[in-house]
Formats: sequence, structure tokens, C-alpha cells
Amino acid sequence: MATVGKTIKCKAAVAWGPAQPLSIEEVEVAPPGKGEIRIKILATGVCHTDAYTLSGKDPEGIFWPRILGHEGAGIVESIGEGVTTIQPGDHVIPLYIPECRTCKICKSGKSNLCSVFTQVLGKMPDEKIRFTCRGQKVYHYMGCSTFSQYTVLLEISVAKINHQAPLDKVCLLGCAITTGFGAAVKTADIQPNSTVAVFGCGGVGLSVIQGAVARKASQIFAVDTNPKKFEFAKKLGATDCINPKDFDKPIQQVLVEKTDGGLDYTFDCTGNTSVMRAAFEACHVGWGQSIIIGVADAGDEISTRPVHLLNGRVWKGSAFGGVKGRSELPGMVEDYLNKKLEIDTYITHKFKIEDINKGFEAMHDGESVRSVIVFD
Amino acid sequence: MATVGKTIKCKAAVAWGPAQPLSIEEVEVAPPGKGEIRIKILATGVCHTDAYTLSGKDPEGIFWPRILGHEGAGIVESIGEGVTTIQPGDHVIPLYIPECRTCKICKSGKSNLCSVFTQVLGKMPDEKIRFTCRGQKVYHYMGCSTFSQYTVLLEISVAKINHQAPLDKVCLLGCAITTGFGAAVKTADIQPNSTVAVFGCGGVGLSVIQGAVARKASQIFAVDTNPKKFEFAKKLGATDCINPKDFDKPIQQVLVEKTDGGLDYTFDCTGNTSVMRAAFEACHVGWGQSIIIGVADAGDEISTRPVHLLNGRVWKGSAFGGVKGRSELPGMVEDYLNKKLEIDTYITHKFKIEDINKGFEAMHDGESVRSVIVFD
Repeated sequence: MATVGKTIKCKAAVAWGPAQPLSIEEVEVAPPGKGEIRIKILATGVCHTDAYTLSGKDPEGIFWPRILGHEGAGIVESIGEGVTTIQPGDHVIPLYIPECRTCKICKSGKSNLCSVFTQVLGKMPDEKIRFTCRGQKVYHYMGCSTFSQYTVLLEISVAKINHQAPLDKVCLLGCAITTGFGAAVKTADIQPNSTVAVFGCGGVGLSVIQGAVARKASQIFAVDTNPKKFEFAKKLGATDCINPKDFDKPIQQVLVEKTDGGLDYTFDCTGNTSVMRAAFEACHVGWGQSIIIGVADAGDEISTRPVHLLNGRVWKGSAFGGVKGRSELPGMVEDYLNKKLEIDTYITHKFKIEDINKGFEAMHDGESVRSVIVFD
Repeated sequence: MATVGKTIKCKAAVAWGPAQPLSIEEVEVAPPGKGEIRIKILATGVCHTDAYTLSGKDPEGIFWPRILGHEGAGIVESIGEGVTTIQPGDHVIPLYIPECRTCKICKSGKSNLCSVFTQVLGKMPDEKIRFTCRGQKVYHYMGCSTFSQYTVLLEISVAKINHQAPLDKVCLLGCAITTGFGAAVKTADIQPNSTVAVFGCGGVGLSVIQGAVARKASQIFAVDTNPKKFEFAKKLGATDCINPKDFDKPIQQVLVEKTDGGLDYTFDCTGNTSVMRAAFEACHVGWGQSIIIGVADAGDEISTRPVHLLNGRVWKGSAFGGVKGRSELPGMVEDYLNKKLEIDTYITHKFKIEDINKGFEAMHDGESVRSVIVFD
């Protein structure tokens, strides 16, 4: 291609500072360095984590200007020196958790939390920055920065997927759906005929529900303070929808009473530490497991009485659903193509990159499940 | 026997009120009711849980006078109506967690936390009391009350063991050793070549160490603020002994640095919620498990930053080592007889029942690992 080895000028939604709307700009994207690839992003989701960083509350989010976005899909434009597993033209999903296959954690086979830092303080691992806008360096985000039409990633930070998959759908496997579905089927390893409660029914929570259905759970409680969410929860397989505001007693007590002693599995998909506690305490004595998925505000802590652990409950967490991106995400794309995994239902809104702030608004208003942003 | 069906007069150490020394008294022990058995206790350990209840801090410990003790061994004197699995003359270890084999939890096969309440507010399940002293009813304790020469228990609250086992040794399987050993081999299921840290090196902690050795852990850290404990920790197989007081930084940080990122398994055997947090945070990203064994003071809560769970650490608890008493304790007695399980090392002190308060003193002074109290 004519662009190989050259800086590309393209559109991007730039965050100039905290709590400001994103600004559509022309940015310059440098060619990929050693072990890196440059991708043309075709579609990207908008996630609460982007909003959290944009809010300025994220202690890691102090680098401005910045290009956010971490739930995308695109086509490889060019590759840097030493790249062997990816070729120009490959369809890929960027991974905010890389998979180097050589670190202690990757080799352990026990976790997807690869210990390679794909970015250091908003920069690439070589501490350089590939984005420029109006003569100013623009920081990277989560090793992805999918709110730019072109972005530079590490080779180990992409999953190569089937060319037939529609990128404006499977982009959601870059975060929400994989995170929730994986938490249910991998981290919790839900067993048939078990009871499940999902706290928070956004994109992640709905995907936990989908995972619980896949594992043939007998009862799936969708818990949310926004009853608008229940339509989608039911569509994806929730058997019971509960609004904690409808009860005078703590929601964990309500659930324990409704389930003869508590749930087999509970999931926090809110990031609220009080909800994390409620989810944990709603578990059954002896074996109930609670999985934290949501990211809490900086400094917030979870707490509980230790007797709840002594009584056999287990507290876990899950990041990106425990899924190893390069190894396992291609299979999830196949599952989507074979209609074993639902994605389309999640996409309630679609915007052009110029209207990306509307995607944030729809999320904040609780109107959207997921907005997909497309570059044309 | 001449005593069958009659009230027995015998010696017992009675707690007349909180924070008072126990008083040796003649007590009357009524015959066993339906589903109950009466046991002659030959030996009993002294445990921190007895001391906790005696201190008056235990919110469940508001019943006075009371006969404490829950780590004993004895011989069945007589059986009540409907008892079929136990006969007079059987050697037994009382179980503070029963095993009914019919409740939801027993039948689940997932937990040892049988849901039968062996006592309700210091009484037997029929809400009656079998002990009398000086004309006053004396409350039961943990369904065991092993500080009485004769005591009444449910049939489902004893493990029938090999007659050849010395009761003044295997009594320690009634709590400390089973609790620690089981937490290591059952709850944590320690894998070969893994790293382990044990916080608190009393009877329970030493038994975790013993369990870690049995599971061929490669490195076993004994952590205690009392360096006197390290002699026994080393004897049982600890490879490294660490006193948190010797460091300026938090002990979890010290351990993470010494173990290339953290431990595979950590155990709290202190009941101190700050230590529970340190033990949890000393775990390795991706797979480290922390098991709470100690019982915290009423109202105390554990807390941590939820990111430690998101990063793949798991928080669990263990009661009585996850061991089902009736089914599994007889096998542990056999292991002791076959020299596969160490008990004798733990017994640093032996007292007659008349000197039971010396057993409490030796424990409080950190002089003893375990005191065994014998009735003559």
C-alpha cells in the first residue's frame, strides 16, 4: 500500500482533557515500530471504562490529550519489523490484555493476565507515542486507542479473526461480550442447573446472562435499579428481574430468601463496591461464588464480615472474562458466525465517528446497551 | 453399665461468667435423649476459640454458666433412643460441625458445613440442657462441651475411630490439626512445587505447614510476630521464617518481593482482619489463593481494593479444614497410627482437669503449641 512506512493522516476523536466532549480531529499516525502493527479501525464500541477515564476520576487517566477506545475491530494496514504472526489485510480485534505467550503468567496456563505492559503511562512500550494532533503528541489508551481511524498496537495485542465476520458487530468482542460471557463460562465455570444472579445489566451483565444460559443455569436473576434494562435481560435469558428499589430490605437478603439459602453464582457488573458486597453476601453457604467484573472508582474498597468466607463462599474476579485473546477470541468469532453467540441484540445505537459524543450520552442516559461507532 | 439411663455425677471445668478462671465442679449429666449419645471424655485440647468465648467478646458467648471445650476424645458410655451408628464402648471424637448426611449441604458433596444446628443458644436441639451444677442449669458449647468428664452429643456429632488410637493424642484432631491440615489439602488443594505462606504459627498454622509439606510445596513461609513459634514451624517443614516486625514495609510487599510476584497460596491462622488482608494481598496475580481460617472478633470486617480480585486472586475460607467429620476423620486417625500425620509434636503441655486454667495461661503466654487436658 502507498501508506506503508509513512505517517497516515486520518480522523480521530481526541480527548483534550477530563470531562470534556471528544473532539473530532485530523491526527497523524506514525508507522508501526518493531513488533508493532498499524490497523485501520472500522468500528468501535463505547464502554463505561472509556467514560470513566474521560471523567478524570481514573488515577491512570491523567494523560491529555489522549485517544480513548478499546473495543474495536479493524484491518491491518502495515506491520513493523519482526512481526511474524500478522500480515497486512488480516482482520483483527485489538486486545487491551495482550497475550505474549512467553511470560510467567502466559506460560502458567492459569490466567489470561499477560504481564507485558502494552503501554507505559499512555505511551508504547518503547515510551514513544505514535499519535500527533495539531503538532502535539496525543497519548495512547489501554494499548488500543480505537477511537482513531488508524492506530498502532503491539503484534501480541490483536486477535486475528475470520474475514467473514462483520467488524461492526464483532468489535463488541473486544470488551463487553467477552468479559461477561467469559466470566460466566470460564472464571465461574457455571454448572448446569445452578442459580445465578447478575448485578448490573449493561453490556457486560447481559453477556453473563448469555453465558449462564449457555451453561444451562436453572434460574438467572437480573438485578438492576433501572427497569429499562430488563427487556434486554429477558431477551437474553434472565428468568427473574429484580429492582432493589422495590424492597425495604437489603437485596442480598431478598435473594437469599428467594433461593433457599442463596445463589450458586453471583456477578458484579457495576463497579460499585456496595453492590460487590451485596453480590458476595447473596451467595449460598458452602459453595456460592461471587465474581467481581466491574471496575471500582479509585480508592474504593470492598469489605465484608470474614465469617462469610469461613462459611464457604468464594470471592473472585474476572478481567476480559479470563479469555486469552489471541488464542480464544477467534473461536468466539466463529461461534458468532455459527449463531452460537449473540451480538446483534446488544447494538441499540450506531453513530458515525463525528457523533461519538452521542454514544457517550446514550450510555449515560441508560438508553443504550451498546453504541457502535463507525468510521466511513 | 450401671450408669445407663441415670444421671451421672462427674467433674467438669465450669465457666461461671466471662473473663473468669474456670472452676472445677461436680456436675450432673443427664442421660442422652433421642438421637443423642453420652460420652466419657478422656482428653481435650484447649483452643483459642474456647478462650475467645470465655473472654466475653464472642457475641454468641452470652450464656453462663457454661461448659466449654470442643477438641476432645472419649468413649461412648450410653446411647439414646433411635441411635444406630454408635454403640457403647465406641471410641469417638466429638465434632463441632456435625454430618447429618441428609441436609442440602451434606448431600451436595460440596461442603462440610452441615446445616443441622447441634445446639440452639447453648442448648441441645430440643432446647433442653443436660448439665446441672449446684442446682443450676449449665449451658452446652459448640455441641461438644468437652471440659466435662461426661458430655451429651448428637449421634451425628461424633466420628467413630480406631480403638488403638491414643485418645490423649488424637483429641487434637477434633479441631486444630484437622482445621489446618484440611485447609491446605482440601480447601486450597495445594499443588506440588507451589509456594505457600502461613500467617500465625499456632496449632492451626503448624497444621497448614504440615499439609503443605504433604502436598510437596517447594517453599513454605512461616509468618509470626512471636519468633518462639519458628522452632516448631521448622520442625514441621517451614522453609522460611519471617517476623513482620523485622521489616519497615508491609509484610505482603516483603513476601511479593521474595517470591517473584507473590505466593500461590496464603493462609490466615490469626483471626486478625489486618493479617487476613495482608495474606490476601501477598498472593500472586492470576492464580494466588488466600484462605481465611482464623475467627475474627465480632464486628470486624475484612477489606481490600477490588482490583486485587480482578487481577485473578481468589479469597476463600475454611472451617474444620473442609473435612466431613464422620466420613473423613477416622481416616486421619489411621494416618496418625501409620505415622503419616504428626500429632505428638504439638503437645507441649499436659495438665489434669484440675489445672485447666494453666492450659489457658500457657496459650495466652505463647508458651504452648497445644495443651492436652486429661481426666483421670
